[in-house]
This record gives sequence, structure tokens and C-alpha cells, in this order.
Amino acid sequence: MYDLIIVGMGPGGYEATLTALRMGLNIAIVEKDKLGGNCLNRACIPTKYFRTGAHLIDKLPKVNEYGILIDDYQLDYTKAWEGKEKAIGFLRRSLEQLLKAKKTPVYKGVGKVIDKNKVEVTKSDGTKEIIEGKYILLGVGSVPTAIANIVPDGEYVITTEDYMDKLTTLPDEVLVVGGGVAGCELSYIMNKYGTNVHIVEIMDRLLPSPIISVDISRYLQRRFKQLKINTYLKTSLKEYEIKNGKIHAVLSDGTELTVDKILLSVGRKPNTQDLDTIGIEKDEKGFIKVNEYMQTNFENIYACGDIVNSPMLAHIASYEAKLAVNNMFNEKKEKADYSLTPWAIFTAYEIGHIGLTEEQAKSQGIETVSGYYPFTYNEKAVDEHESEGFIRLIFEKDSQKLIGASIVGIGASEMIHPLGIAIKEGYTAKQLHEFIYFHPSLTEIIGHATYDLAIGPLFKR
Amino acid sequence: MYDLIIVGMGPGGYEATLTALRMGLNIAIVEKDKLGGNCLNRACIPTKYFRTGAHLIDKLPKVNEYGILIDDYQLDYTKAWEGKEKAIGFLRRSLEQLLKAKKTPVYKGVGKVIDKNKVEVTKSDGTKEIIEGKYILLGVGSVPTAIANIVPDGEYVITTEDYMDKLTTLPDEVLVVGGGVAGCELSYIMNKYGTNVHIVEIMDRLLPSPIISVDISRYLQRRFKQLKINTYLKTSLKEYEIKNGKIHAVLSDGTELTVDKILLSVGRKPNTQDLDTIGIEKDEKGFIKVNEYMQTNFENIYACGDIVNSPMLAHIASYEAKLAVNNMFNEKKEKADYSLTPWAIFTAYEIGHIGLTEEQAKSQGIETVSGYYPFTYNEKAVDEHESEGFIRLIFEKDSQKLIGASIVGIGASEMIHPLGIAIKEGYTAKQLHEFIYFHPSLTEIIGHATYDLAIGPLFKR
Repeated sequence: MYDLIIVGMGPGGYEATLTALRMGLNIAIVEKDKLGGNCLNRACIPTKYFRTGAHLIDKLPKVNEYGILIDDYQLDYTKAWEGKEKAIGFLRRSLEQLLKAKKTPVYKGVGKVIDKNKVEVTKSDGTKEIIEGKYILLGVGSVPTAIANIVPDGEYVITTEDYMDKLTTLPDEVLVVGGGVAGCELSYIMNKYGTNVHIVEIMDRLLPSPIISVDISRYLQRRFKQLKINTYLKTSLKEYEIKNGKIHAVLSDGTELTVDKILLSVGRKPNTQDLDTIGIEKDEKGFIKVNEYMQTNFENIYACGDIVNSPMLAHIASYEAKLAVNNMFNEKKEKADYSLTPWAIFTAYEIGHIGLTEEQAKSQGIETVSGYYPFTYNEKAVDEHESEGFIRLIFEKDSQKLIGASIVGIGASEMIHPLGIAIKEGYTAKQLHEFIYFHPSLTEIIGHATYDLAIGPLFKR
Repeated sequence: MYDLIIVGMGPGGYEATLTALRMGLNIAIVEKDKLGGNCLNRACIPTKYFRTGAHLIDKLPKVNEYGILIDDYQLDYTKAWEGKEKAIGFLRRSLEQLLKAKKTPVYKGVGKVIDKNKVEVTKSDGTKEIIEGKYILLGVGSVPTAIANIVPDGEYVITTEDYMDKLTTLPDEVLVVGGGVAGCELSYIMNKYGTNVHIVEIMDRLLPSPIISVDISRYLQRRFKQLKINTYLKTSLKEYEIKNGKIHAVLSDGTELTVDKILLSVGRKPNTQDLDTIGIEKDEKGFIKVNEYMQTNFENIYACGDIVNSPMLAHIASYEAKLAVNNMFNEKKEKADYSLTPWAIFTAYEIGHIGLTEEQAKSQGIETVSGYYPFTYNEKAVDEHESEGFIRLIFEKDSQKLIGASIVGIGASEMIHPLGIAIKEGYTAKQLHEFIYFHPSLTEIIGHATYDLAIGPLFKR
């Protein structure tokens, strides 16, 4: 009997593996597909690969400012796709090699919990094997959601997973349905690689998420307009017809489009339909119910990642997995705390967020003051020709303690981390202002954004 | 009478200005040269501008991995120089505009303190003007040091200031004397823009500074070798002769070189030779003596930046300037604390450091343990084809509290900031490990570098 069976080798399962192996546990892994899960194979990592390429394309018109005179260049998305495969292949192999070196068994197949200590693994040839474990961690992730009238066929109407698995060349014209994170990230990528992109979003803004302030959505929408990404807000795809290899689509506002592909990016749902036969409790949306220790209604069975009702982020899966393994085997149990979850989005701008937005604070009855600074005058950003964007720091009004931070622009996804620590430590604007920041750095924008509150405004309002 | 006269408008004077204006003070500025000082005009900012170009050149062979197929390209350093002028010109103008908007008088000329409340300004036409202030802040910076037998002539033998002010085209072959920060930064830049670079360093390693571990110097030296930058350690320039437009140089190891220019980068000395007539105390090296409040032996005269004996860094000048203005006008005095000074170097690698190195800790009798992780497996670094380098975190052995951090590789200059906060807060390896880091980010390397100490090693040693 294994100490622990890990079902699903995505970012949750991977982190659980690392933690368990370091704790000296005897573990087994069940994975039906490639190691690394969606994050490594179809989402976070390949997206950031393509985004690096897209951002480099954005950079090319500026390189002559550095005396780099490029005669001409072509874009070949297939080569980028191959590069992506190489990058994720390297990372997957390093994971395989680690498991091999640690002699950790990997059962290739679909896992189903058939007893509180037993997982049945159904291999691709239909044969079944049953393995036993003292503890079980479930982390089988999520699958793309569809909308009633839009049926992914893997050819004309594709999901974000189809995009990463199969799309070795880009369509000339695409309709992206859903202006959330994945929709905005892939729209930017396709736009920079030469596709004419239409994106529809049923809400009144791109990135319609509580952690994204309205002004950030608008800032991005302006940039999409400059890039000639056709954005349709408060709009949905009403109907479409496939004819002679083209898709004729009609939007809810009456716009008619002819495109080569429809990319569906309307969210994800937990992959829990056929996960057990023993009655692990789920909510009405199919999320597995866990307590604060990540424990299901079976005391030795834990769950993490996209199958539980917490932010669908790879690092949240990893965090929960680590917590779960700790809570299984250590005396001291720890509760999940999502208050300092960093968020980042890589579209036409890098966008980072941590803590509360002004809108969220207001809805909680917290009065706020904010500190703002644009990258316009940040010397490092100017040196890099990347001076678009801004930082906004949100403080509780009376205490002037930091409660949230949003950044748009270069380095946003890294700079949210010191701000997370600052929120945790209850730093005031004055304390943040008094840190010594390296000059020139992007991070010193924090010192500038706190100047008004810490010392006083330059100009009276 | 002004509340405050600021002599020198470098990063110290600029920060003092921002702080004083926000405090509503009536100030005057004295500056003999361009606003922004050496930092903006001849050091930090132009160096990072050229470094951005050099790094882009380094990147070009990798862009085909993103499907960007570049036919051919030429390098034109003059265009980069013009781009640099535009960037620093923009920043200088923004500074000028601020002073104009705030109606802050700028006395153009050399300032000399002739009374504890009087500064005499000598303009370029020789005329003099005397201004009075309740307080005086001195921040006139430093000038390049020379070595006895090497005489800068601005033509063949140039200083780093000549480089930034005048060098609109690069020499074919250069000898860089001094392998410190400026020498290593400019060697990399010139190398990438096509110059054949020789660099001599009298110590046994490049970047021979207490804050740079020996292994980091070696790591950089290997990269210099790959780049065909000719590095001569434990070597000095013995003699040279200028003949027919070329310099014939003989090194201490007997090597004979023929180069077009010698770039002298052997350090800087405080620019305090003719700063006052009233006996402001200086040490034997010419640094102005200040107490912990940045106060000189005259209670209303303070000093900051390169003219006081603290790390010669722009952000230290800013920090000291802010402290000085606070201590002049606020009840609550604050002492200077340099223990959390971030350092960063931009050469063939980005290098960042904060706190103590292992060597420094050892010399202070502190027993250490360390956490290490290479960028090799950091998914973001792999996505960006920037996976060289590593992080090393230094902890006090018994408490496992973070006391220092060094990073080599992409993002190093930004990531030292969260680590600085962690040192300040006395975070242990376990606490650092338990933070939620965005995935994929560079910063999550901190979580990996603390895994061994927080949970246990993957492999027994």
C-alpha cells in the first residue's frame, strides 16, 4: 500500500509529488495523459511561450532605436509552434527524469476512486489495475466549457486545448468567443502573428473579472483597437454556419463575419464527472467539496486545483497540493488562505494584481486612498522602450495600510510579489516609500506611487 | 533666504527636490551641468539603454525559435547613441518641466559654500552670485579616478564619462582597464555591438567586490569567454604608446596589444576638492564626513551621494537625500541604514544582490546554510529562452532566517526587492517557501530555492 496516490499530474500533482518525495513518502502517480497537465501542455506555459514571441514581434519596430537595423523579416507560426513543443517537451522530460530517478511509479490511465483506499486505473487498452493507498490526492483539473449553441468540432470550432494541441498554423481570420484571460491572451498572440482577430464578449468589458478594475479593461481595449483587434462588447455569437470551408457567423448585434475558425474560450469546468464511485461530495457545479484543509468528506481523500471551488490558477493548485500533503502527514494542520493570491495576465500588456481592487474594497465597506504612477517616467521602462502602463496601489484610508495592487506594463507579473509581502505585513504607504529600491529598476515605481501619501502631493488638487 | 539650497542635481539632488517640494519648502537648485547628474546623463540610465540594445542583439539568434525569421541585420552604434540621447533627453526635459511648473529657481554654475548659510555660484561666464539658505544639501557627486601612468586625454584614453558624452561610434578594438561594474557593463555592450574587447583587472576575478561571490565572478568569466571578450586577470596595463592613431599597450603579463582606445574604469572619487571655504570636514579620501543623519560638522549643512563614504549608487544618493531633507525639517530624525541596499549589475548577465554573501557572513562569524536553484527549469525563463543563471539564498544556520540573496539571470535586479523585504522581516526558508508565487513567474524560483530547507532534499547528499 502506497502512502499516497496522486491522481492527476498537473501543477497540483507535480507539487504534491515534489513535497511528498522530499518528505520521504512512498507515492504512486496516476495520469491519463501527458505529465504536467494542462498548465504545462496546453495553457500557462505554451501561452507564455507564444506571448514571448508576440511581444518580440511588437518589439521589432523599436529595435532600430538600439542601432539594430533589420532588413526584413517573415513570420512563420509553425516554427513558433515547434519552438513551443521543444520548450514544453524539455520541461516534461525533466519531470519524467525526476520521477525515474526517484523510482516513482506512474500508472498511465484514467483514475477512479472505488474505495476510500483504492484507485482503479483504466489504461488506454481498456485493461484495469487497482492500486491502494493510505491517502489519495485528487487533482484532475478542468475541461473547457461549451455554450449551448456552439459545438467544438476540433476543426472549425476549437477550444483553447485544441489550439495548443493541434493548431500548427494560424487561420487568416478568427472569431474568439469570450474576452476573459485566455481569450485576450490568444487574441493578442494571433494578432501579432498576422491573424485578423474578432473577439466577442458578452459583458461590457474585456477581462470582466472582479480582480480587474474597469480602467484596466479600458486601457487594454484601447490597445486592442490600436492593434486592430476587432472587439465586440455586450455581444455574443448568435449563430454560425460552416460552408465551403468557411464559417459564416452572425453576432447578437447583427454583425456578419466570415472567419476560418471560431476559438471558444468561455471558461472551464471541473473534470469530476466520472472520478469516483464512493460518493465524494460535489457541489452543484461539480466542484469537489473540501474543508479548509483541502479534505473531502473522506478523511484520507484530499483534492486540489481546478476541481475544487477556488481560483482556477496553476499556482493555486500547487499551493493547495502542498497544503494537502502537509495536512495528511504532519501534526500541524494548515488552513488554505487565498487572500494573497497573485494574478497575472499576458496579453497586449502584462497585467498583475494582488489583494483587493478599489471596487472590491468599496463593496466590503472599506474606505480607500490610492497611489498611482505611470511607467512614462520610469527610467528603466524608458530605457527598454516599454513605458506604457501604470501601477495603482490601494490603501485602507485611515491606517494607510496597503490592501491591494494592480500593475499594467512590463514586469507586472513579478512586481506583484513584493506587494503581496507588503500587504501581508500591513505596510503603510510611508513604509513602502522608505524602502531603498534599485535605480534604475521597474520596482522603484512603488516608491513613486507612494510619494503623494507618504510625503505630500507635488501639485494641489 | 531659501529654506533649502540643493547643490548638485543628480539622483540625490533630484530626490531632495521632489521631497522638499512636496513638503512645501522654498528651495533653490545649483547645478553646473545638465540636470540629472552623472546617473541620468553618463552612467546608470545610458548604460541600461545600451545594455537593452546589447541584450536584444544577444536575443536575435533565438527569435527564429518564435517563428520570427530575420533575413539579415546590421548594427549601427551611432543610431543606438542617438536613441540613448533621445531617452535621456526625454527624462531630462521631464525634470526641467517639473522645476518650471513648480517655479523652482535653478542657478546654473559651480556652487561653493562660503558661509554656513551662503552658496556662491560661479557661472560659465565667470560671474558670481551669492544665494542664501537656512539649510544646504550638498550632492555634487564624483569624478572618475585615474591611475598614475594612464592619463585620460578624451581621445585615445577615455573615461566612462567620455564614453557616454562623446563616443558616437565604437572603436574596432578596445582595452578596458578595470573589471568592476562599469568595466564589465561597457565591455559587454561594446562586444555585442562588434568591438573586439580586452579587459584587464588587477584582482583575480571580474567584479572583485565583497558583495559579489567568487562563483558569480567565475560564472560571468565563462560567459565572457564564450563571447570572446578577452579577459586578463591579475593583470594591469604596464605601459602604452600612441603612434599613428593606434595605441600600443603592454600588459603586466607581457601581452602586447594594439587597440584604438583605452577605456579607463577604475573607480570614482568624491568631487569635493573645491566645494567650500568654511572647513566642512572631509576624510583622507576626500569624502565629506557626515553623522548618521547625513549632517556635516555644520548643523544646517547636510551631504548625500558619492561625496559621502557610503556605497556609490544612485539609489543610495536618493535615499540619503530624502533622509537629509527629513532630518532638516521634521521633528523625528531618522538614521541611515544601508543594510538592505539592493545592488544590480547589467553585463552579459543581469546580477542582483541584497544583504550578506556567504563570505561576508562567514567573516562576521555567522554560520550559514544556503538554498540554490538554477533558472534551467524555471518555466518562465524557458519560455523566454533566458534560462541561464541561478539564485542563491543565504540563511543564518540555526534560525534559518534569510540574511542575503544573490541572483544571476533575467529579472535579477527586480527580484532582489521581495528578498530585501524578506530579510527585513526575518523570514525563514519555510516562510518564503509557503508564499504563493505566480506560475509561471521568475519570482517563483524563490519557492524552489527554499524547498530543500523548508521540506527536505529531493536527493540525499
